[in-house]
Amino acid sequence: MAIITLTTDFGEKDYYAGALKGAIYSELGSVNLIDITHSVSPFNTYQAAYLLRNSYKHFPKGTVHLIGVDTERTLENTHIAMAFDGHYFIGADNGILSLLTAHKQYDKLVEIALPQQEQSAFSSLDIFAKVACHIARGGTLEVIGKPFTQLKEVVDFIPVLNQNMSQLAGKIIYIDNYGNVITNITKAYFEQVRQGRPYEVMARNYRFQEIYNTYSEAINFSVPKSKRNDDGKKLALFNSSGHLEIAIYKSNLETVGGASTLLGLQYLDPVSINFL
Amino acid sequence: MAIITLTTDFGEKDYYAGALKGAIYSELGSVNLIDITHSVSPFNTYQAAYLLRNSYKHFPKGTVHLIGVDTERTLENTHIAMAFDGHYFIGADNGILSLLTAHKQYDKLVEIALPQQEQSAFSSLDIFAKVACHIARGGTLEVIGKPFTQLKEVVDFIPVLNQNMSQLAGKIIYIDNYGNVITNITKAYFEQVRQGRPYEVMARNYRFQEIYNTYSEAINFSVPKSKRNDDGKKLALFNSSGHLEIAIYKSNLETVGGASTLLGLQYLDPVSINFL
Amino acid sequence: MAIITLTTDFGEKDYYAGALKGAIYSELGSVNLIDITHSVSPFNTYQAAYLLRNSYKHFPKGTVHLIGVDTERTLENTHIAMAFDGHYFIGADNGILSLLTAHKQYDKLVEIALPQQEQSAFSSLDIFAKVACHIARGGTLEVIGKPFTQLKEVVDFIPVLNQNMSQLAGKIIYIDNYGNVITNITKAYFEQVRQGRPYEVMARNYRFQEIYNTYSEAINFSVPKSKRNDDGKKLALFNSSGHLEIAIYKSNLETVGGASTLLGLQYLDPVSINFL
Repeated sequence: MAIITLTTDFGEKDYYAGALKGAIYSELGSVNLIDITHSVSPFNTYQAAYLLRNSYKHFPKGTVHLIGVDTERTLENTHIAMAFDGHYFIGADNGILSLLTAHKQYDKLVEIALPQQEQSAFSSLDIFAKVACHIARGGTLEVIGKPFTQLKEVVDFIPVLNQNMSQLAGKIIYIDNYGNVITNITKAYFEQVRQGRPYEVMARNYRFQEIYNTYSEAINFSVPKSKRNDDGKKLALFNSSGHLEIAIYKSNLETVGGASTLLGLQYLDPVSINFL
Repeated sequence: MAIITLTTDFGEKDYYAGALKGAIYSELGSVNLIDITHSVSPFNTYQAAYLLRNSYKHFPKGTVHLIGVDTERTLENTHIAMAFDGHYFIGADNGILSLLTAHKQYDKLVEIALPQQEQSAFSSLDIFAKVACHIARGGTLEVIGKPFTQLKEVVDFIPVLNQNMSQLAGKIIYIDNYGNVITNITKAYFEQVRQGRPYEVMARNYRFQEIYNTYSEAINFSVPKSKRNDDGKKLALFNSSGHLEIAIYKSNLETVGGASTLLGLQYLDPVSINFL
Repeated sequence: MAIITLTTDFGEKDYYAGALKGAIYSELGSVNLIDITHSVSPFNTYQAAYLLRNSYKHFPKGTVHLIGVDTERTLENTHIAMAFDGHYFIGADNGILSLLTAHKQYDKLVEIALPQQEQSAFSSLDIFAKVACHIARGGTLEVIGKPFTQLKEVVDFIPVLNQNMSQLAGKIIYIDNYGNVITNITKAYFEQVRQGRPYEVMARNYRFQEIYNTYSEAINFSVPKSKRNDDGKKLALFNSSGHLEIAIYKSNLETVGGASTLLGLQYLDPVSINFL
């Protein structure tokens, strides 16, 4: 059965996601319709790209991903369908798709042009749902659009290596549900420039001597649990998506706080790695 | 495969929606179970009716809509199943269904009377799930209820046209995820009473000379983007559900704010159209 | 079709639930994947156990329940798959499963040991998804784990009966979406120790002479609605899960408040029943 995923900023309380699901089921009796999230911060294209980049590849090849963020069609924001990495993406050309491909080659790219397409204040419902169902039924991109060559480029947040290669300067690009802060420094890039050197991670005035691969690696389990006081310990790790993350062990924003609140780290704040 | 939708005030964190879904899958092995929302404000029948009215019609005919808001059966609040506009609705007779039909003729209406029906503090689970599955299996309303003729009427928020037809006085009936405020004035009614006259929209001390059909119509794209300052521009439009809406261009309640916070507009505040 | 449910603390806005769903669909083309909740308070094992205990039994026998709360595998927190009460549960041995079984006998219990299992910062994705799909396909627990005998015990919140059996002392174990406070005193245990005696419920300085079985039993419908003032009335009842609950009639935390805020009752506060 075809799979269509939804990544939107509709929120949880509105009828927008419900209406969209209804429209898709009205076209396709049989489909797996999966919510990735409806809680993207409104119009936040960077956040949408981050969330989609880290989830789409876990779905089977051929999955159709509908992106309902900043979708209104304007002279500067046309509608796009793209085949990339074995998946299909439908959204507006607002930077999300170029952040997603990150200069890798897409397989096919069209500007959506449906017959009798009117201006709409709800493009996800009126346009993207039809396109998603067309692709899910096995239809080709050529039928619903005309060739398009240049995705809109936006400034991506790429870590900067200084000239003498002694410092990798990154930024916080996301704060997650646990209050952990996630940077744009990936393990792959870090290892490439590190070349075996010792290092330290700097975030505000906090210094981390080690980057773990799991949260609990920071905990010394040879000390009996009653004598440890580890909940709330701060640490750096490469998380499951391969990004450098500053975390609090077993953090909870509602109770003990997370790295963001406890360490005063915010979206776009600098985090850097110094090679020693 | 049959479709059952859920519109409730259970919230996202509780087990109530999970238990309800389990009960439905226990009766029907095969069903498309769609969340419209579980974030209706508790006991807010007007909000539930608004959300359902704008989403149900996008689903295929024959869809069963379970309404889990203010469901406890009392002497004043009986349980109802209704066939209307090719869809089925199950809920309590608390005004939601009469707001939904808005005086249009329903096809069939029964008061639910299951054998061995006990009093329940969780009617959606104990009663509505069974009724929804019965209908989804193709069962008739007559089997699970007895004829019922009079839905409970509640005061609907209908815009008022003054005697000399110079002013249409509406109200804010919903504030959405983006902070946009949505009124009870529909495009259809506006055009009917306007009869080609010029107009202005008044919301508090704000005046709008034009009602757009999309958000971006308010933006002048002939000015280069770097010289425009449009994010945060306030505007009036008829939204995708046909209602007059006061919006902020690319609003985000967490950052720049929305129409509600920026213009100080709240639920049930007046918004009117003056014909000039 | 097999059913897999998800109970996690991933939150609504992150990509974690989306990635997990993708991984499951990549292994199993055809599955009913049901969200119980993703809004467990981070690392709150008691809350997760409460939510799952009250929802799992409504699903059909054979359902696989994946528990994504406090999942990182450590020396003190191994990974478990359990057959219990005709259902399957997959999670970490962090107390959730022993709270769930509450000393009842499980059918089978294994410590998960997949071949080539690496340490992971996202066990739900890397390990539990594979195990859930294996079981959903009809695979046995023996294949994915080795026998395990002793679930980690945690202190459960059990009401305490005093020596002369005149008082049953309970605690608040959950506050729901409506602000209603739910205690660990069950109807079954209450009836067992009550033995027909009169009683009163004490919560802070509030006293309740009766425990209802539905919310509206507290309302006198012989008084015309216009003369009653019942919204906001406080009451005690045994709720649909059989727990003693202190509630506010038609409470709404956003407007009139709920029992928690209005009566100043918080998580783990005492609630007791005195027999007279």
